[in-house]
Amino acid sequence: MSGESRTSSQVRRVRVEVLAPEMVLGPREARHLYVLRLSPGAELLVFDGQGAQAQATVAELDAARAVLHLGERSEAASETPQPLTLAVALMKGDKLADVVRAATELGVARVQLLVTRRADAREIGAQKLTRLNRIAEEASKQSRRAVTPAVLPPVALTDFQWEGRLFVAQPGSSLRLTDHLDWAAPITVLTGPEGGLTDEEVTQLTTRGASAVTLGPRILRAETAPVALLGAIAALGQ
Amino acid sequence: MSGESRTSSQVRRVRVEVLAPEMVLGPREARHLYVLRLSPGAELLVFDGQGAQAQATVAELDAARAVLHLGERSEAASETPQPLTLAVALMKGDKLADVVRAATELGVARVQLLVTRRADAREIGAQKLTRLNRIAEEASKQSRRAVTPAVLPPVALTDFQWEGRLFVAQPGSSLRLTDHLDWAAPITVLTGPEGGLTDEEVTQLTTRGASAVTLGPRILRAETAPVALLGAIAALGQ
Repeated sequence: MSGESRTSSQVRRVRVEVLAPEMVLGPREARHLYVLRLSPGAELLVFDGQGAQAQATVAELDAARAVLHLGERSEAASETPQPLTLAVALMKGDKLADVVRAATELGVARVQLLVTRRADAREIGAQKLTRLNRIAEEASKQSRRAVTPAVLPPVALTDFQWEGRLFVAQPGSSLRLTDHLDWAAPITVLTGPEGGLTDEEVTQLTTRGASAVTLGPRILRAETAPVALLGAIAALGQ
Repeated sequence: MSGESRTSSQVRRVRVEVLAPEMVLGPREARHLYVLRLSPGAELLVFDGQGAQAQATVAELDAARAVLHLGERSEAASETPQPLTLAVALMKGDKLADVVRAATELGVARVQLLVTRRADAREIGAQKLTRLNRIAEEASKQSRRAVTPAVLPPVALTDFQWEGRLFVAQPGSSLRLTDHLDWAAPITVLTGPEGGLTDEEVTQLTTRGASAVTLGPRILRAETAPVALLGAIAALGQ
């Protein structure tokens, strides 16, 4: 964000398949570097989308191909202590794109799409899912994370399995996420569609161990609720 | 949001100039009610955008004019204990619209636009400012608030005056908003433009009494930071 120095944002980050002494980039990434007028010898960061990150040097570069040499590995300090998952009901139109973009900036390790009773949609096209994953990749680069969150195809809410703790947003709850968050285990936050989860759906989740938490006394749109919950986690320093 | 029952969202809310025993609506609001096929005797909520809200009954309605009769006043429980202000750097394009919409849902009483050193823009057109205020009004209705936040024309950051406490988002800070929020006084949260506030700008603010708070270790876009900070306040139950 916001407060970050300009200099550091000029260090280019490039995603590679795997960190190796010599890395050959395909046409898309090579073209990207070529357009930036990088020359052999230029330094950048490479990351594998799985949490590994390292410095690298451009060895060869033309419009279709780039070869990078691996430098020192760097710790990616930008990840939460345990994996953070956003489970979010399907939404119409481009709303999910905005949610995935913000969720990636806010540190999620994956986004699990959900089919709920009142969800606007029951399924998502393969092309749209690919696009959401592409958006996660771009947002991951921009916020300089070493992990690219996977956006996973929808499952029915009743079939959704989670590991660790699950927090579900529920108006009227008196429980506060910010009081109950610890990182002893993975964390999932879950938000419903426009019109909300049904009371029955919330009860089913809490029966399975979920905690229903407040997001304040107002009505939030389905696309605002996940950003608000993940924002609360970020404001706790994670 | 999300978890709210459908029944309650069908109660219509209409903004009026002032709550009075008999309220005459102009063509725009009247047409809105007419299209909804409300009949005389239908019940709705009226609010004045200043915090007052009451039940009302449709007395007369055609496509150009509506007369409402005032019913019982209701407490608007959807407001923060003290006024909450978002102070946000100018941004290009439609990003401010998204910020204003989400900030309204998340309970701000006003949005103060700021000119900062790295702000994308130095000014905003009158038409655009009117549109942002319209967006705040719509979002206020949708989230069933009794207050419509004002979106105020930009001031230079150095001239910006606030009342109560100011929290400014700063990467690398170890102070957590969620630990330091109390409602003894009005609250302002301040976020910078793409590229951030300069160190000098942050220092000037903290010298004037602001607290620099973390939003986690990642780089957030300028339009995500305010939603994250306000989300943290909402997750504290306000």
